[in-house]
Amino acid sequence: MKTIEVNILEEIELDNPIFIEALPGIGHVGKLAADYMIDELNAIKFAEIYSPTFPPQVLVKEEGIIENMINELYYIENLGEDDADIIFLVGNTQALAPDAQYLVCKDILDFILEHFDINRMYTLGGIATGQPVEEVKVFGAATTPESIELLKEADIVIRSNDGGIVGASGVFLGLGARLGIQGSCLMGETLGYYIDAEAAEALLKKLSILLNFEINVDKLDERAEETREMIARAQKMEQDLINRANAGNSDDLRYIG
Amino acid sequence: MKTIEVNILEEIELDNPIFIEALPGIGHVGKLAADYMIDELNAIKFAEIYSPTFPPQVLVKEEGIIENMINELYYIENLGEDDADIIFLVGNTQALAPDAQYLVCKDILDFILEHFDINRMYTLGGIATGQPVEEVKVFGAATTPESIELLKEADIVIRSNDGGIVGASGVFLGLGARLGIQGSCLMGETLGYYIDAEAAEALLKKLSILLNFEINVDKLDERAEETREMIARAQKMEQDLINRANAGNSDDLRYIG
Amino acid sequence: MKTIEVNILEEIELDNPIFIEALPGIGHVGKLAADYMIDELNAIKFAEIYSPTFPPQVLVKEEGIIENMINELYYIENLGEDDADIIFLVGNTQALAPDAQYLVCKDILDFILEHFDINRMYTLGGIATGQPVEEVKVFGAATTPESIELLKEADIVIRSNDGGIVGASGVFLGLGARLGIQGSCLMGETLGYYIDAEAAEALLKKLSILLNFEINVDKLDERAEETREMIARAQKMEQDLINRANAGNSDDLRYIG
Amino acid sequence: MKTIEVNILEEIELDNPIFIEALPGIGHVGKLAADYMIDELNAIKFAEIYSPTFPPQVLVKEEGIIENMINELYYIENLGEDDADIIFLVGNTQALAPDAQYLVCKDILDFILEHFDINRMYTLGGIATGQPVEEVKVFGAATTPESIELLKEADIVIRSNDGGIVGASGVFLGLGARLGIQGSCLMGETLGYYIDAEAAEALLKKLSILLNFEINVDKLDERAEETREMIARAQKMEQDLINRANAGNSDDLRYIG
Repeated sequence: MKTIEVNILEEIELDNPIFIEALPGIGHVGKLAADYMIDELNAIKFAEIYSPTFPPQVLVKEEGIIENMINELYYIENLGEDDADIIFLVGNTQALAPDAQYLVCKDILDFILEHFDINRMYTLGGIATGQPVEEVKVFGAATTPESIELLKEADIVIRSNDGGIVGASGVFLGLGARLGIQGSCLMGETLGYYIDAEAAEALLKKLSILLNFEINVDKLDERAEETREMIARAQKMEQDLINRANAGNSDDLRYIG
Repeated sequence: MKTIEVNILEEIELDNPIFIEALPGIGHVGKLAADYMIDELNAIKFAEIYSPTFPPQVLVKEEGIIENMINELYYIENLGEDDADIIFLVGNTQALAPDAQYLVCKDILDFILEHFDINRMYTLGGIATGQPVEEVKVFGAATTPESIELLKEADIVIRSNDGGIVGASGVFLGLGARLGIQGSCLMGETLGYYIDAEAAEALLKKLSILLNFEINVDKLDERAEETREMIARAQKMEQDLINRANAGNSDDLRYIG
Repeated sequence: MKTIEVNILEEIELDNPIFIEALPGIGHVGKLAADYMIDELNAIKFAEIYSPTFPPQVLVKEEGIIENMINELYYIENLGEDDADIIFLVGNTQALAPDAQYLVCKDILDFILEHFDINRMYTLGGIATGQPVEEVKVFGAATTPESIELLKEADIVIRSNDGGIVGASGVFLGLGARLGIQGSCLMGETLGYYIDAEAAEALLKKLSILLNFEINVDKLDERAEETREMIARAQKMEQDLINRANAGNSDDLRYIG
Repeated sequence: MKTIEVNILEEIELDNPIFIEALPGIGHVGKLAADYMIDELNAIKFAEIYSPTFPPQVLVKEEGIIENMINELYYIENLGEDDADIIFLVGNTQALAPDAQYLVCKDILDFILEHFDINRMYTLGGIATGQPVEEVKVFGAATTPESIELLKEADIVIRSNDGGIVGASGVFLGLGARLGIQGSCLMGETLGYYIDAEAAEALLKKLSILLNFEINVDKLDERAEETREMIARAQKMEQDLINRANAGNSDDLRYIG
């Protein structure tokens, strides 16, 4: 039984596309970087993904219009000097429960592999340093020594023996590794307490080196402002969920419903 | 596999009925308003819904008679000047677990759509303001700009960019939006700590404008008193569940069983 | 998919047996009463029930022999002056997760109804009063006014509008009510912090009135002592589970395994 | 539906192999002992096991290479004077959720029993004493009096009536007992706060008596050092998961992803 429901908007053909995952995470670094690329490079949405494992809620947006919890797939053809085709996985949420997170990632990857031949993937995230930094570093990890070499050439700091990668950015790498897909995770250094445009910019610059394309980052600060508002909404909702969780998910009396 | 078991009491035919969800939530505002409408307008129960995802308990009512955890469907034919058919979803509980909440809402909506052609839905709830108010406001959000306009015409305050709608009231809107069902959520302003008859009355007045019907609200205070007693029982039970949750759901020794 | 695995030890035929549930709960009042009846009246075990929903552990018993987490079915034929056949559900655990509790109870009841024609059930538990009492009261609730009358005749105190019955004792009543099975819950008053032989004795006396049989309760104190030791073990294990739960179920490093 | 995905590396035939479980647990005593045996005695890996129930993450190892959460099966043929064939279950994780733990153990045991005829099993773990000890004791429990006798002959201290065995080491014993497989659990005494090479050495010595083989333990200290580093990583990740759990599993903003 699938944990996702996919709404295909456009049937497309791509040439060995590179898969980029950038779902919400620490400091929304990966999400901000990918959303900016999608806007700036006119990526096209070709599928919407819903799941019972996403939080049971909707978001209230501009002018009171509600938005479903959703993941989305976009594509770009012939990016940069390598003429690379790219698939982006972005959205406003990840699955809530630990086992659901594995299953949702697996079902999404299966869906993509049914349609496309993926040899390479990047997962984008943030890494919380706990203290402000002068110059934002980008950290990396990968599934193979060859990928690690490419990260080093782009002056990405290799993490070694220091914990793990939790959530979609980790699970996709792991699933990919089992299928022989070369995968790297790029993590922008961030305090993690606010939406971090600087970290996203640093991440984007490394990604542009790795994928050999150019991008104007001027509007990233603007974008960061919008995302900051979204985060404020999300934190309000998060607090509701924390309150519910503290009451054993049983405090029906305290939430809107 | 369905997460609900439906006991159909009467096979009915309705003409494009409007679906109204009013399960227990903040201040029981939505529940109180809908229960009152059902009583006052002699709505008829046509289905009972049970689910493994409801809390594993029964309620002890008047004279020691136990009551199952349950959701119920009622209908009214030819309501008000628009001769509208209405379906109500009410009950004494929502699903406990986050992913169960999505699945239960989806299964209930699927059941309804198998039998009826739904174009419009309202979900009723409360919104906690945290401080007492002089005059109760009713807030709204919706799936389309057209629905927002109708809410504005009824002097409902549009929420904008301020968080989300958690629980059944949110999930039904989101599911409906994907199916092209126009949906609005009405939220009565409440402290949220007690059963709020004033908020329910304010909500009911807005709903009567939107659905173009008249209703005598005199007995709402009386009803509020009954519901207040029910809430006291529920809070006692809630506390039991909190205690269990704080002990990792494993404190078999502390609950009745 | 069933949540239980049943190992049938003996195929039996019974005449409209009365079903008695007495799984571990508050003060182990119900469990102690039922275990004593089983021993004293030589009830015979005819089925063992295992479930993935039981805690993932085994108990270490006398001489280091391990015991599985288990529920068990026993029977007595021709009990007392009514010549009643009885089925007991006892064991060392209930399901851990809320939705599992409903499903396990449903699967067990389904199993019993496949083999026997049940018209009546009693669920036995404790009710925590929070302070020591001079004389132990037995409280009751039931699915029908007729059953309430029978409880009153036995001087059982009827609970009214005061919360609920959480766990197997509640869920079985609720499931039975939907199938037309007359059900009553008897709850012995207890502090709830230790294994309460007095509460179990009071409960047993009421049950002997309701079922019209005689039983010598002299050895109940002895039995209470054994059960007290078992409780101490369970509490130790419970603490382990609490520790794990507090760490998000992820603290692999802290438990035996 | 299976909760595991097995990748078979080599089809092998073994003669009534003895099954040894040593997944991560208290002080990693069992894991350390088994990993050492595997290295020192050149056990061969023949299957890899993945599961959605493992934590949704990957580990970052030497030089930034990621490692999947995994369980693994190894074998040794003709061990020691008894010419015993051995199967080891080791790995870097156990299932997160309680019911998942039962199901994963059951699926792994089913997989093994489809391929091999198992009559005997040992599960290896630690037992936290809470205070430093002069000489490390090894505790034991078992499924039958015969097995208890064998443990006593090896000067293993029999636990009696003192709680339980939580996690895979308990669940495998329980599942085995139901199938007539003789099972014993060996638990090395440990503070439990660090990787305990002494406890692992004590455990290994008892196992070598029970299985009648010889092993050089000189490199165990070295191994302990490596494992200590792994633990540090795991604890960091564990802290992430605790943080997530404390926020009701909903704090998407705080983890890498």
